[in-house]
Amino acid sequence: MADYIGVVGAAFCDRETADLAYRVGRALAREGLIVVCGGMGGVMESVARGVSEEKGVVIGILPGRDRLEGNRYLTYAIPTGLGDARNAVIACAADALIAIAGGFGTLSEISLARKAGKPVVGLKTWKATNGTGEDIGVVNAATPEEAVAKILDLLEDKRRRDNTA
Amino acid sequence: MADYIGVVGAAFCDRETADLAYRVGRALAREGLIVVCGGMGGVMESVARGVSEEKGVVIGILPGRDRLEGNRYLTYAIPTGLGDARNAVIACAADALIAIAGGFGTLSEISLARKAGKPVVGLKTWKATNGTGEDIGVVNAATPEEAVAKILDLLEDKRRRDNTA
Amino acid sequence: MADYIGVVGAAFCDRETADLAYRVGRALAREGLIVVCGGMGGVMESVARGVSEEKGVVIGILPGRDRLEGNRYLTYAIPTGLGDARNAVIACAADALIAIAGGFGTLSEISLARKAGKPVVGLKTWKATNGTGEDIGVVNAATPEEAVAKILDLLEDKRRRDNTA
Amino acid sequence: MADYIGVVGAAFCDRETADLAYRVGRALAREGLIVVCGGMGGVMESVARGVSEEKGVVIGILPGRDRLEGNRYLTYAIPTGLGDARNAVIACAADALIAIAGGFGTLSEISLARKAGKPVVGLKTWKATNGTGEDIGVVNAATPEEAVAKILDLLEDKRRRDNTA
Repeated sequence: MADYIGVVGAAFCDRETADLAYRVGRALAREGLIVVCGGMGGVMESVARGVSEEKGVVIGILPGRDRLEGNRYLTYAIPTGLGDARNAVIACAADALIAIAGGFGTLSEISLARKAGKPVVGLKTWKATNGTGEDIGVVNAATPEEAVAKILDLLEDKRRRDNTA
Repeated sequence: MADYIGVVGAAFCDRETADLAYRVGRALAREGLIVVCGGMGGVMESVARGVSEEKGVVIGILPGRDRLEGNRYLTYAIPTGLGDARNAVIACAADALIAIAGGFGTLSEISLARKAGKPVVGLKTWKATNGTGEDIGVVNAATPEEAVAKILDLLEDKRRRDNTA
Repeated sequence: MADYIGVVGAAFCDRETADLAYRVGRALAREGLIVVCGGMGGVMESVARGVSEEKGVVIGILPGRDRLEGNRYLTYAIPTGLGDARNAVIACAADALIAIAGGFGTLSEISLARKAGKPVVGLKTWKATNGTGEDIGVVNAATPEEAVAKILDLLEDKRRRDNTA
Repeated sequence: MADYIGVVGAAFCDRETADLAYRVGRALAREGLIVVCGGMGGVMESVARGVSEEKGVVIGILPGRDRLEGNRYLTYAIPTGLGDARNAVIACAADALIAIAGGFGTLSEISLARKAGKPVVGLKTWKATNGTGEDIGVVNAATPEEAVAKILDLLEDKRRRDNTA
């Protein structure tokens, strides 16, 4: 069964960030991974465009009730009606996340994925340390291609650990 | 864009009900419709088996956190971690429902879809009238094939009304 | 610890239904029960008014994001931002329900409470039977005061059964 | 109408952190503020203990389905059945947050509150900056009493801004 990779980032972004997302989408699709995102604009639209150009699958999990609010590159759009609580669904539905830049919503998705013990790779995204100085554990990547390579490695490591445990 | 049809019913069912679900799945897939279900056993598994045999697409929206709880016939499985609140997501994600027999959870999905003004076709499912004797508005069908034909008609009617309004 | 009784019904209702809700609210408060409702207008407002006149506690669990959308009689208002999925939260938060008339949303709450094995008493509310003719199991009451008496009996019965099991 | 202050932190914590939470609870209750928390152990339990000792009101919004999972100091316990998505409900239900130390779940609540433009005051909690170096905007406090004073100031400022806008 293919892994599901959540790609998270803001609904509005500059061209450079959009390009990162687009390249992440292409690289994930080329690996045969299923992409999950929030389905709206900005990073979510660009990653979906990248996936669709490589004939991959990208599922948008929308905050609102209307499928038509989803961007036009989604393979499937799931309106949830949950508002911000759909961020928890994205973190739950994905086996790992790639976070690209992003706002507060992105940080909530990173946090919830980390809470569930899931790997998160970041491109120009949030840095966070808790009150005792421990890091949130986002693995940084310099390029979209490196982000995808790292997510594959981290999933492989996790699988090995889970099997040993 | 293809319509999304939710197929709802219980996680445990007898062979006759499972066969209805299987045939609904086949008929929906042959029409090129995308099927959404709760992703677990019983009716949800049989409809997914029908869809998969016709090489259609069936998305399971799971109550739990583990993708592996989904039945093996799902094309895509979305663990939500929401428990029963995932029923509201199914009613939101679907453009129309086909309800097959079913328990209390099924009735909650029928109700939420009707609240959103979406067509529901039933096969041996719940009958309900409110305190003033008004019917819940589930359109009954005698066979799986009729259920699918009716759902297509109802969606067409709704589209025409929405465009006129 | 006091029991939490959910009172469910439509956001718009006629004067007779509003009066039933008001009297249910008064009777629940006099018993020292905590009332949970959807926090909006109609039945939800009238039950809250009844509770507040008896100096009881009524908690509104709102579908939207704005506390000010709640009616003015609520002791506490909890905006959830979940839309219709808040109905599942109401069914989860209550130990038992009293359903008064009501629309599709009300039926979804009845269904989810019944799914969880919780008692539901009805006043002029939905009647429903599944595909094999089994009843949804709402216990009907003729008056608000009888509804409250029955809910107390049903909770007592359930407690005894749960303790025996 | 009283403001609702969410107090967020981990379900397990050391004695020093528990003491901070307890003092935050006392100070909030003395101000007549309504406290919202996740209802479980650790910081959530200590803040509730502080509130209850001052005869204040603390509402626990629980992730699970069982009211009895809530800690014993809660005035009201709302089981949601939503799992981690209940973090979004807490961020929605509160007008402002005080974050005390905390883990990944805490950071998700901080993020969602900030997304909604709500003030967050921190005690030994997360620090975070986004990809362009902007801070998450948590206002740090040195003591529980200062945290409560700052939250009151920030709510006052926000009210003034909202009225001007």
